[in-house]
Amino acid sequence: MKSFSPLFDELQRSLQVLPGVGPRSAQRMALNLIERTPSEASKLATVLAQALRDISHCHTCYVLSESETCQICADPKRDAHRLMVVESPGQLMAFERAGLHDGHYFVLNGLISPLDGISPDQVRIPQLLKRVGDGVTEVVLALTSSVEGEATAHYIKAQCPGVTLTRLARGIPMGGDIESLDPNTLELALGARESWS
Amino acid sequence: MKSFSPLFDELQRSLQVLPGVGPRSAQRMALNLIERTPSEASKLATVLAQALRDISHCHTCYVLSESETCQICADPKRDAHRLMVVESPGQLMAFERAGLHDGHYFVLNGLISPLDGISPDQVRIPQLLKRVGDGVTEVVLALTSSVEGEATAHYIKAQCPGVTLTRLARGIPMGGDIESLDPNTLELALGARESWS
Repeated sequence: MKSFSPLFDELQRSLQVLPGVGPRSAQRMALNLIERTPSEASKLATVLAQALRDISHCHTCYVLSESETCQICADPKRDAHRLMVVESPGQLMAFERAGLHDGHYFVLNGLISPLDGISPDQVRIPQLLKRVGDGVTEVVLALTSSVEGEATAHYIKAQCPGVTLTRLARGIPMGGDIESLDPNTLELALGARESWS
Repeated sequence: MKSFSPLFDELQRSLQVLPGVGPRSAQRMALNLIERTPSEASKLATVLAQALRDISHCHTCYVLSESETCQICADPKRDAHRLMVVESPGQLMAFERAGLHDGHYFVLNGLISPLDGISPDQVRIPQLLKRVGDGVTEVVLALTSSVEGEATAHYIKAQCPGVTLTRLARGIPMGGDIESLDPNTLELALGARESWS
């Protein structure tokens, strides 16, 4: 294909860094940005550059933050003694959206996975233990239900004697279609069945 | 939802200017840009700002271009006497991808639509007529098959006496499922049926 504008092509290529965006959507996005929404596009370029320059990690919980202490850790109304451990900022956001947790968070950077060579210090376990030692009384493990999630939960448990450890209940999700659930979830849900009378 | 980073929220909002991107995909994009691909994201911010600053329209065909004359119009191997009229840069790109046209293009800015108050001079018809007067011998109208497309084609035809005007054949698309085609297309395809023996 003959190009009419090398710079347009470069923009189209650059947009493909966005997750789920292939050549066709990138072309549509580039045309829209330039032709239809130039002022919003200019705002986007500025905000993106600013975010990349200023956003780092909160020194306490490691969520994304442009200040040393994020707005959640800085909020005096939240209970700093209850710490929810999540794998990523996206999971933290899911809990915040639901408004279910009014304690603090700690964002791991993934899960321990010996098979993939991911060791405890690559996922901020040392930083977590330091944080837990800082007056935490309950640690809520909100980790994915998987082999790596189990490994990470067991590792944390072994390193945190004297602290109440809880983890999310596992079972059948609300509205979950039993027919399409995997055998492991079904086994787990059946094994942990609750009496109901 | 309590925000942990106002700047992150602003990035998430800004990303929603992209077509087809709602709050959830914007969040996923923002996280990815900041956490996983900061250097590509930085490139994107730079290229976007540069594209907005430097890309304008080719003075001859009105496609996006960072120079006065786009690379298609500047190509001496292309036939400047055959002019394909399209509605948008995206349609031009579709023809270029297919490599089917080696003449020049003219990019209208939409179609004439009296009902929506879109007059000939709002879609660059005066510029087109000037371009046609500049030695064009054939005008290929590659316009959407619609009421507005018809109105635009008729208007151009009336203004271009002495020039060969052609338009794209209409009918059943390759692989098109006859069962799901609209009655207008079927009527058109039947009315224009070709002898085949």
